[in-house]
Amino acid sequence: MRIALVGIGKIALDQHVPALAASPDWELAATVSRHGRVEGVEGFARIEDMLEARPDIGAVSLCLPPVPRFQAAQAVLRAGRHLMLEKPPGATLSEVHILRDLAQAQGVTLYASWHSRMAHAVAAAKAWLAGRVIHEGRITWREDVRKWHPGQDWIFQAGGMGVFDPGINALSILTEILPMPVHLRAAELDFPENRQAPIAARLSLSHGIAADFDFRQQGPQTWDMEFQTDAGQLALRLGGNLLEIDGRPATGEASIMGEYPALYARMAALVRKGASDVDLSPMVLTADAFTLGSRRIVEPFVF
Amino acid sequence: MRIALVGIGKIALDQHVPALAASPDWELAATVSRHGRVEGVEGFARIEDMLEARPDIGAVSLCLPPVPRFQAAQAVLRAGRHLMLEKPPGATLSEVHILRDLAQAQGVTLYASWHSRMAHAVAAAKAWLAGRVIHEGRITWREDVRKWHPGQDWIFQAGGMGVFDPGINALSILTEILPMPVHLRAAELDFPENRQAPIAARLSLSHGIAADFDFRQQGPQTWDMEFQTDAGQLALRLGGNLLEIDGRPATGEASIMGEYPALYARMAALVRKGASDVDLSPMVLTADAFTLGSRRIVEPFVF
Repeated sequence: MRIALVGIGKIALDQHVPALAASPDWELAATVSRHGRVEGVEGFARIEDMLEARPDIGAVSLCLPPVPRFQAAQAVLRAGRHLMLEKPPGATLSEVHILRDLAQAQGVTLYASWHSRMAHAVAAAKAWLAGRVIHEGRITWREDVRKWHPGQDWIFQAGGMGVFDPGINALSILTEILPMPVHLRAAELDFPENRQAPIAARLSLSHGIAADFDFRQQGPQTWDMEFQTDAGQLALRLGGNLLEIDGRPATGEASIMGEYPALYARMAALVRKGASDVDLSPMVLTADAFTLGSRRIVEPFVF
Repeated sequence: MRIALVGIGKIALDQHVPALAASPDWELAATVSRHGRVEGVEGFARIEDMLEARPDIGAVSLCLPPVPRFQAAQAVLRAGRHLMLEKPPGATLSEVHILRDLAQAQGVTLYASWHSRMAHAVAAAKAWLAGRVIHEGRITWREDVRKWHPGQDWIFQAGGMGVFDPGINALSILTEILPMPVHLRAAELDFPENRQAPIAARLSLSHGIAADFDFRQQGPQTWDMEFQTDAGQLALRLGGNLLEIDGRPATGEASIMGEYPALYARMAALVRKGASDVDLSPMVLTADAFTLGSRRIVEPFVF
């Protein structure tokens, strides 16, 4: 099946292009980007031009930042093409609700992807937690924004989500593996004096689960979660890639695919089934943190 | 049908108690409040005590501020009673999703009420807009927080929603009367230097709709919305109570009931049908404004 990639930036080149190149399901047939190109693939500057010129391309994958994404997404769905969205699926919940309804009306697939849910040990963690009672949990998601988003000012603009850009990955794993829904009780957000999105956040969720997100981590990076349950301790480390039960490595049924290859395999399966997958729970928890959270002003941040 | 009222503060005494006294459907059979009482009605200090002592009371109406509401709501639903919530239905979307699922699992009615939708001219405005195309809209919701929420510090605490406490009323009318869904494009929120919730907000929605919420209005109060359509201008004034078409008063099929009597009539109808009504679209737009909005710090506010 032919697919077009829109937004040829860092994440597209690092992840989407290699995943599509290795995919047995997809052929990367066009790109849309103001500046980016992929060698040997037809490039367009405007999405409307691509949709008109290439009726043979049945699916489109968007890797734009959240704020400009909606208009492109609407154009794709109105043109009757299947649509896969990078995380988060939009800048607002209200726009994703509109996309969901539009996809349904058009009879096409909409896949709001969460790449961290495809990390190696996530399925095994979910299987282990099923039916267990969570007494307490601790999420630590601390990374260096300068390393992962060098110079990407949009991430600290209004709607850029700041530290929730990685934090929502933790929330996507959390909402996938827990045997019950969680809700937010309180939050504290640290806004750099010169920015419109938080650089750190501390969340207090139900079931005794606390989350610590920080974009200022230097040295070793941390993407860990630990849960105390009625049947022992589960730890999921390295962004969902390593599982430990009671301190000992546990393999479980680890996925052998990378995150992005697994996303594109799932997109292909959804298209074949005529189904959609739009789980907004990580985005709801994020919106809840912005709504309920108290704000602290912290020192200015410069890349 | 017997009902208990939880949270005997200003809104309960001003609106809920008189509405229940006049209702042909409901008998106010108990109250729960730390300090408030209603003459001639059994009063409890704790909701758990009321639920245990009065199995004859099949429904509960909560008029607590949003933050402490969830625990009480969960207790009511777990006890198998029907539940009506003042607006907004919770402090977070994630907690209301949990209540919605719990009500469904328990087979009881959950009614997330939006009192402004029951204002006199809302149904007529909705009927007039049906099938019309909106070119532009302007919402002006400016009131004096000192007059309507005297000394209510919770409204400016984290989760208190600030100016979105009245603003969500405008959004509840908007999402009721428009013939299509809207989404948020941008927002600007003014936070007083000494408060954790905004005192003013400017929203830019799709379809050319702008909203101006302000809690610092002195003198005349304004709760107006105006829409330019392909078939003329509609204005809804006085918080949904007065309809004008092309500048001339239009009566339409105005409701003859007050807002709160109409809410309790709807709650009775929902219970009789075994149905629920949980439309979160006003709350989604509010959460979107907090998520997407840029923040300005403005002068401190003291009641």
